[in-house]
Amino acid sequence: MLDKVDLNRKLPREEYKAFMRGLENRLGELQREARGLGIPVIIVFEGWDAAGKGTMINRLLISLDPRGFTVHPVNPPNEEELFRPFLWRFWTKTPGRGRIAIFDRSWYGRVLVARIEKIVKPKVWKRAFDEIRSFERQLSDDGAVIIKFFLHISRDEQKKRFKKLQKNKATAWKVTEDDWRSHRAYDSYLAAIEEMLERTDTKYAPWTIVEAHDRRYASVKVFKTVISRIENKLKTSTQDDKGDTGPVKKQSEILLTSTLEQTDLSLSMNREEYEQALDKYQKRVRELEHEAYVKRVPVVIVYEGWDAAGKGGNIRRLVQKMDPRGYEVIPVAVPNDIEKAHHYLWRFWMQVPKAGHIAIFDRSWYGRVLVERVEGFASEDEWKRAFHEINEMEEQWTNFGAVLLKFWLHIGKEEQLNRFEKRQKNDYKKWKITEEDWRNREKWDPYLQAVDEMLLRTSTSYAPWHVVESNSKLYARIKVLKLFVKNLEQKLSA
Amino acid sequence: MLDKVDLNRKLPREEYKAFMRGLENRLGELQREARGLGIPVIIVFEGWDAAGKGTMINRLLISLDPRGFTVHPVNPPNEEELFRPFLWRFWTKTPGRGRIAIFDRSWYGRVLVARIEKIVKPKVWKRAFDEIRSFERQLSDDGAVIIKFFLHISRDEQKKRFKKLQKNKATAWKVTEDDWRSHRAYDSYLAAIEEMLERTDTKYAPWTIVEAHDRRYASVKVFKTVISRIENKLKTSTQDDKGDTGPVKKQSEILLTSTLEQTDLSLSMNREEYEQALDKYQKRVRELEHEAYVKRVPVVIVYEGWDAAGKGGNIRRLVQKMDPRGYEVIPVAVPNDIEKAHHYLWRFWMQVPKAGHIAIFDRSWYGRVLVERVEGFASEDEWKRAFHEINEMEEQWTNFGAVLLKFWLHIGKEEQLNRFEKRQKNDYKKWKITEEDWRNREKWDPYLQAVDEMLLRTSTSYAPWHVVESNSKLYARIKVLKLFVKNLEQKLSA
Repeated sequence: MLDKVDLNRKLPREEYKAFMRGLENRLGELQREARGLGIPVIIVFEGWDAAGKGTMINRLLISLDPRGFTVHPVNPPNEEELFRPFLWRFWTKTPGRGRIAIFDRSWYGRVLVARIEKIVKPKVWKRAFDEIRSFERQLSDDGAVIIKFFLHISRDEQKKRFKKLQKNKATAWKVTEDDWRSHRAYDSYLAAIEEMLERTDTKYAPWTIVEAHDRRYASVKVFKTVISRIENKLKTSTQDDKGDTGPVKKQSEILLTSTLEQTDLSLSMNREEYEQALDKYQKRVRELEHEAYVKRVPVVIVYEGWDAAGKGGNIRRLVQKMDPRGYEVIPVAVPNDIEKAHHYLWRFWMQVPKAGHIAIFDRSWYGRVLVERVEGFASEDEWKRAFHEINEMEEQWTNFGAVLLKFWLHIGKEEQLNRFEKRQKNDYKKWKITEEDWRNREKWDPYLQAVDEMLLRTSTSYAPWHVVESNSKLYARIKVLKLFVKNLEQKLSA
Repeated sequence: MLDKVDLNRKLPREEYKAFMRGLENRLGELQREARGLGIPVIIVFEGWDAAGKGTMINRLLISLDPRGFTVHPVNPPNEEELFRPFLWRFWTKTPGRGRIAIFDRSWYGRVLVARIEKIVKPKVWKRAFDEIRSFERQLSDDGAVIIKFFLHISRDEQKKRFKKLQKNKATAWKVTEDDWRSHRAYDSYLAAIEEMLERTDTKYAPWTIVEAHDRRYASVKVFKTVISRIENKLKTSTQDDKGDTGPVKKQSEILLTSTLEQTDLSLSMNREEYEQALDKYQKRVRELEHEAYVKRVPVVIVYEGWDAAGKGGNIRRLVQKMDPRGYEVIPVAVPNDIEKAHHYLWRFWMQVPKAGHIAIFDRSWYGRVLVERVEGFASEDEWKRAFHEINEMEEQWTNFGAVLLKFWLHIGKEEQLNRFEKRQKNDYKKWKITEEDWRNREKWDPYLQAVDEMLLRTSTSYAPWHVVESNSKLYARIKVLKLFVKNLEQKLSA
């Protein structure tokens, strides 16, 4: 999930101040409402050293009635704790109904520091994923709201912050030799964090990644997330009780974590360079297709992207020199009656390529969290559940040995308009543009939000998303070819 | 779970015939109703070779409209199947809305035959538990009813059936060398089956163990289970739609799998033998208490049982010679306000003994599935969820290294009456008997059903239940002492 995070997000001071006043008041109100309804709230802060967990917790506390919360700083376990099952010290600290418990670090230490520093055996931290999921599910089933933050900073930013602390005599003691050792192990921690996020990002206890380079941005995101999670819970609780939404106000919009806004759409390629690269990579693709066949590696390619982003042309260039016996392009449209009568993943399971074959999906199961979400064809419960369901499916496929490549073909809103208009003027391409395309275009923003969340929640270590800058079609085609070659070579040489 | 199954259950022919007519008609009705509501039904038959899966499936089919179901015999995977992720061949066979799919063997082959015969690596079958749970959860979330049967026969019974088949020329071909090899590996299979049942017995897809020595008994149990599961689903579906229970009739009672009825309550012990044994085992208990302290093994003892079964006196004998610094007896009554404000397991997590110490619970977390279930203090959803939650907790404790011993002190209904009356006549013991005891006694049958299901669903390889025959208090005390000694010795020598 972290590969899809834009750490450069900032919030200007004025905007921040304007935001915060409202957020603080709202949070105070919600604390009182949650107390009234007896809802326990658990807030977990995890994150890199020097990412600002302490500051963030203090910021949050200002708005809360101190009689209603407890902060639990989590240190290495003491003897009392070591002599009991690992979750004991957290179970005993779960909040009573109507109370808030804030954890400064948490049970996730078991799969982070204890794993990396080899404090526990692999068997033990591996088991902890199950234990943690069971813990959080049991509490959530019992009515608790569980909000988990991971405060993310880059390796460079961490170094900068450590150095700054060291320079100042008043804070130099805060940076220890251990901290520097962890810093040097940044990449090992990063891999462990990714695995933690993947294995414990559930519907009942989802993670929120906080871009923590800018403190103002981070604070607003934390406040908005807490507010929206509690509001949602109040909405369902009061619905259960009274059948209406009661006094609860409209859900605050969470700040977008747009991975797409950082896309450099100016990237392009001239025709000459393109022709050369095309020839070179297409030949290599054919070789790799054969090699994958011999080694019985199944390959799954997913194309998603905006209307008119150039999926069709891109796919044609990918398969142009392939042996047609080895691949299949599968266009995905509205499900037919038989497909509708099954689980939405059923029709994609039907299409799993045989080992050694390549399946190229022109649109895919991601429709569930894109068009079905935005158009309301899937209920909120259904599309929220889908992130985890899709990850489970993709993990099973890659565990089996498949290579899974997912491309999001990205273009700007302006570029789309140009392409739509050009198509309409061209008699041969007119058929390609329909009323529906224009209607979808009007929903650009809700789609953008859906795409963003999809990229964040389903970009996994086993099946990451690749955003393909597609304002230049030539550039986009070569990028896909290169990624195909690189990933297949990696897999086949392993 | 299999250790709590009484394989001697039988149904006389007349009773069977009377039952079956009604069951067959009802099943036909339900198939039509489920089709109308678009509910997919998945029925899985697993079980020992020669346990009668085929016969049972044929029996079931007679009542069904053949246009509405498909039977899938599951053989070793063919090439098409081997070349795709393991669940592919089952996903593609999931039934459409309103249809029934019956699996003769299933995806569980992955954790049974493929495990025992080493067809797949340990990494692969271990991962399969996650994959299977995810598969079943996804289908259930999508509205499917999943009914899983395990047809159980003893090793001797299997041998008898194989021999009978071999004797008859017409059936001799059915018993292969492979079958005999599997038979010789009965114990390895048994352990794998137990683990399978433990890891995949979920609220959304629970297992039903079918005692398959008697075909009539087994048929009725299969029919009743299928009927009751579909009725329950229809009830919730129609509630969702129309807010009332619609045309659905009262849920059939499932045949009790009473482990308690096989208890031999005539077991007893004379005073002399008792005094000798008491002295011997109590001394050994004290030694073991010390040894457990030195080796830092935590011990958890759970006492549950009928009112007046003698829990108090039994506990006193267990601890009589123990060092009081090493153990604690924890009486469990109605939760107080603070406990009520938390998850029901919270107060027991609070009491986890420190490594090296012994906690003896006089009543326990099992109240959730006993008194809270019978008296309606917990909702059906809550107590059904609790079996899995409790197993998760106990597994975490034993994974940590704890010894967990669970005793059900069992007495007959008559014996309870005798004891109640005796207490009432005795001025010193009068206080022990209250109005509530008499009220509970009137609910003997619902309690019996709750106890039975508890013993079945929470008797696990890591924390099995021990039923203690307690009509003779002397016998019961020595049995508990012996079990304590045996289990501690086992753990401490490991």
